[in-house]
Amino acid sequence: MKITLEPIGVIHSPYEKKEDIPIQGVFKSQGVGSIEVFKEYGKGLQDVEGFSHLMILYYFHKSKDFSLLGKPFLEDKLHGIFAIRSPHRPNHLGVSVVRLLERKGNLLKVGEIDVFDGTPLLDVKPYVPKFDERKDVKIGWLEGKLDHHNGDQI
Amino acid sequence: MKITLEPIGVIHSPYEKKEDIPIQGVFKSQGVGSIEVFKEYGKGLQDVEGFSHLMILYYFHKSKDFSLLGKPFLEDKLHGIFAIRSPHRPNHLGVSVVRLLERKGNLLKVGEIDVFDGTPLLDVKPYVPKFDERKDVKIGWLEGKLDHHNGDQI
Repeated sequence: MKITLEPIGVIHSPYEKKEDIPIQGVFKSQGVGSIEVFKEYGKGLQDVEGFSHLMILYYFHKSKDFSLLGKPFLEDKLHGIFAIRSPHRPNHLGVSVVRLLERKGNLLKVGEIDVFDGTPLLDVKPYVPKFDERKDVKIGWLEGKLDHHNGDQI
Repeated sequence: MKITLEPIGVIHSPYEKKEDIPIQGVFKSQGVGSIEVFKEYGKGLQDVEGFSHLMILYYFHKSKDFSLLGKPFLEDKLHGIFAIRSPHRPNHLGVSVVRLLERKGNLLKVGEIDVFDGTPLLDVKPYVPKFDERKDVKIGWLEGKLDHHNGDQI
């Protein structure tokens, strides 16, 4: 079975080099970018301005290959690709939560962006804590690894 | 630009009819299903068992069309498709957080499932609150609409 997708827009970010991109957008809240939804989909943005955060789905276009085991940024051990957030994954799909700063027509100014400039946008969904957040979460190999990120940026 | 994806597995759920599926999985925590990752991708599951929750990406295969405006389950007004979570969206991509109950090889027993039986699986990512959760969230048209869901199931 093959599934064919077409980008609905493009993400503009300040990041052109891998080393500039934060591990996750929430760690670099000053990372401001914009999401350009192509005009033919613009009508679908009606009422997004009421939401403070959006979930974006996109295509890791710079990643040409995948590996079933990978080393994440946060440590030097191999883990299964489905236990890490590396872009080098089957189907190369990415998900991020961004902060919506402003909407101007089909252009969304957003904070907490963590993708390459020019990333193809596949979907935008409203971020809803009651749908998307969970309590009593265990984070496996990441346990203790995020402690030094407990600063102002969280 | 066309992007071609291939399912990495299939989601087995108790839901064969639309009216049985909860609006979101978290509202029906007894909804137990299983995620079958195809054998050729099984190695990528290494270490997922340390995580209590996983984010799954999938293809809304029952939705053949999309509409830029839609009426969500929770009210009778039209909203832009990017301000609601309807499956009838461009690219038909879905995201859910599920509770990992057990891993047996390439089969994951999961709770809080909210998709049709047979849904094609596109990706599995570890759910990490520090990456995926936000504070001070505004939820636009959904404000006040979720209050009657404040019961035991949340």
